[in-house]
Amino acid sequence: MKEIEKLYDRIIQRVNINLRELEFDVNPLVDKLVPTQQMTKFYAFYGITPHHPLNLVFKHANLSGSYFLGKVRVTSSLLYKSDIRGDELKKNGDLFQYQEFNIPVDQDEEITIDDSFLIKTLVHNFSHDPETLETFFIRDTVSTHYANIHGSPSDGCYLGPFSTVDLTTMRDCVIGAYSYVQAGEISHLKIEPGTVWVRKPGDFNFMYRYPTGQLNTYIYFPGGSPPQGVFMDFVEDRKEAFQRVFNVVNIENSIPVPPNTSLDRFAVIKPKTKIGENVLVAQRAFLQNSVLGRGANAQENCYIINSKLEGNNVTAHGAKIIEADMGKNVFVGFNSFLRGRPNARLTIGQDSIIMPHTIIDTRNPLSIPSGHLVWGLILEAKDLETNSMSLKAFSKIDTRVCRGSMLFEGSGGSFVSSFQERIHHILEANGAFYDGNLNRGHAQRNQNISFNTIQPYPKGDKEGLYPTIIIQP
Amino acid sequence: MKEIEKLYDRIIQRVNINLRELEFDVNPLVDKLVPTQQMTKFYAFYGITPHHPLNLVFKHANLSGSYFLGKVRVTSSLLYKSDIRGDELKKNGDLFQYQEFNIPVDQDEEITIDDSFLIKTLVHNFSHDPETLETFFIRDTVSTHYANIHGSPSDGCYLGPFSTVDLTTMRDCVIGAYSYVQAGEISHLKIEPGTVWVRKPGDFNFMYRYPTGQLNTYIYFPGGSPPQGVFMDFVEDRKEAFQRVFNVVNIENSIPVPPNTSLDRFAVIKPKTKIGENVLVAQRAFLQNSVLGRGANAQENCYIINSKLEGNNVTAHGAKIIEADMGKNVFVGFNSFLRGRPNARLTIGQDSIIMPHTIIDTRNPLSIPSGHLVWGLILEAKDLETNSMSLKAFSKIDTRVCRGSMLFEGSGGSFVSSFQERIHHILEANGAFYDGNLNRGHAQRNQNISFNTIQPYPKGDKEGLYPTIIIQP
Repeated sequence: MKEIEKLYDRIIQRVNINLRELEFDVNPLVDKLVPTQQMTKFYAFYGITPHHPLNLVFKHANLSGSYFLGKVRVTSSLLYKSDIRGDELKKNGDLFQYQEFNIPVDQDEEITIDDSFLIKTLVHNFSHDPETLETFFIRDTVSTHYANIHGSPSDGCYLGPFSTVDLTTMRDCVIGAYSYVQAGEISHLKIEPGTVWVRKPGDFNFMYRYPTGQLNTYIYFPGGSPPQGVFMDFVEDRKEAFQRVFNVVNIENSIPVPPNTSLDRFAVIKPKTKIGENVLVAQRAFLQNSVLGRGANAQENCYIINSKLEGNNVTAHGAKIIEADMGKNVFVGFNSFLRGRPNARLTIGQDSIIMPHTIIDTRNPLSIPSGHLVWGLILEAKDLETNSMSLKAFSKIDTRVCRGSMLFEGSGGSFVSSFQERIHHILEANGAFYDGNLNRGHAQRNQNISFNTIQPYPKGDKEGLYPTIIIQP
Repeated sequence: MKEIEKLYDRIIQRVNINLRELEFDVNPLVDKLVPTQQMTKFYAFYGITPHHPLNLVFKHANLSGSYFLGKVRVTSSLLYKSDIRGDELKKNGDLFQYQEFNIPVDQDEEITIDDSFLIKTLVHNFSHDPETLETFFIRDTVSTHYANIHGSPSDGCYLGPFSTVDLTTMRDCVIGAYSYVQAGEISHLKIEPGTVWVRKPGDFNFMYRYPTGQLNTYIYFPGGSPPQGVFMDFVEDRKEAFQRVFNVVNIENSIPVPPNTSLDRFAVIKPKTKIGENVLVAQRAFLQNSVLGRGANAQENCYIINSKLEGNNVTAHGAKIIEADMGKNVFVGFNSFLRGRPNARLTIGQDSIIMPHTIIDTRNPLSIPSGHLVWGLILEAKDLETNSMSLKAFSKIDTRVCRGSMLFEGSGGSFVSSFQERIHHILEANGAFYDGNLNRGHAQRNQNISFNTIQPYPKGDKEGLYPTIIIQP
């Protein structure tokens, strides 16, 4: 038995031990999901820049097709086509504010991934857990296609496809397909597929659940084979376009790039795409026949097709925007799927917030007024009655509101304002507000990345495993 | 001043201190020879295989366009498009025989490069110095275009373009352009350009000197600008063909490769080329419209064009063969330049030995009988009278022979037999004799190499310097 297979068994066993209380077995879900020969086929790569701290350590791991930036340590793990972005980690000397605590950070934070199996997963941001300031850990965890682990340390968890855990520490949890969780700290929970849960203890609690039948047409993962549904078909149909960008060593920008804009060389840019200043286009983003106005960003695994974004638009990790016109400052959350049709455009007014994991899939023209909050599944205009509200109205909630499958308790004002603050922070971090002097962000810092590829042992017992690799300043 | 420039100054100063006695200044020779921006332009790469020990350590160095295999440590050095092949190093447990000594090797040998500047240089084989069994050191050394440092530890030396130092330990020496030195151990010597010197103390001494005027048409390096002459024009004319192979991540073999043959993915193969079994084609080899018979090899920087090699032919590092027909077992030494013309083929009979640094450049058909030894400059048939001898006749020399610019003293028999033994060893090491079971060599071992690219800091003070990189099993 090859070492890489032993490693797989070791990881699965460790995850199952953590999930024994929930009587959850990850093996039938991920067994043979990524054939071993696939794992030896693709190179991994890492970025070196003058702006990011550097400390990469890889030991006893397969990293096939994965990307690394900043401070990352991977041990005894399988990372398949995953993105581990350590460019928003805390730095020595930072002060971490948490409620009434001001906690000094006295060493650079590091992402540490141990005994885990991540498939096409994005790991980004920093640990929001005041208990583990300097380590953003991912341990004994299995994560599947297009899951996002965002500022969320994880120990002993399973994440289903297209799920997102955001600013939340997880212990021994199962996150169902396409569920979004932002809940501070959770433990020994099983989150059903299609759950959207945003909680600030003592302040507010937002809960939405997709109707199972309809969710399955978009994403369905019974195990035994790759995930199925509209989401998977959509990305599979566009897979080939990425092959070219991954097969050449140096690639020229296919379109002119204004100053202070960063277009990643591992992004796909199809014809008739225009990008403005202070725009950030991350690796694995897909842009086609679209316009990104000043300060817009297109994050990992997002797709923007036949659409126009006015400016300062956030298109979060994994979000998809097709045949749509978005006003200024429209925010589209993680893994949202917004699809208009050529003769039925989707229009979203400025300052609107499309919550993470929202599906808008319309066959008739659909228009969302400016300043609205939108969530859940919207197939036609009338769904907006139960799945949207003006930010103004939502801010007035002070007790409890129930709309369709959405339940909100607590202060709507606090919910809206913390959302808006966060959007502002995201734009700031990405360099949308850069004025040539202040507010430099990723869009400016990522312009001078040099990429480096690494590959595993090509044959023998260690086939597929990478040698120990240490890269430091 | 950028760190890479400081590093350059540091190296030049250290080399000049070593060469002060010879009143030799390397600075005017190499100053601006490789512009700093060139040094940041190309990636370096290293191979990982199941058959080679792995231990790569890079610190405070630029490695632009260079290749590494096996056990190599590079510190405070500039390596530009150089090949550092640590695949013939001694291994822990080996027994190193030297005269009457049997010296046990009790750790893996390592190539260590410190405070040196190597330009398009090949470093290969192992340290033949019984005093430094486990380190093949290159220290305080500057080496220029297409020099070969072959099994030759070097401390405080300068190597001119197309020079070769072979199985020789050098201390504080200057090796002139296109000189070949195989002399065991040398110190505080200045070797004039175009010297071919093969010495076995107490056994034999072979000395040839190229006529300066004619040598200059082939290679001329006064300093201040890159080397000039036929050799440089020849490689520059074929430079573009290499760009493609270096610009793609994965490349398919352009011709069918028989079992037990290794065709490096960084070699250039032009149409109508055929290669047989047990053939080794190394990186940076150039093959065009040629046939390589069973067991032939094409080593780094060699060019084989419109030629036929019957089999078990050695084409050593940097050798060039154009419009020629070579019989079985013909050996062509380092950096030799053998050029026939379309209507004036060059024919070399089987078992002949073309000594390293031989130039045969004929405009009329020229035929060298089998079993001959050939050296020096041959422009027409009559030059063979002074520049060749049958191996049989040469073996009979027991005192002293002077022919044209060649002087031989000692035992011709011992000279010929040690040459033949070495050729046999080279074929063996390269896998020419592999029978599907025994005598596995590079041709078989190099089939499963995975290549990995690394790049320097793209901007800032460290621009052009690589981060510290450590790669171990």
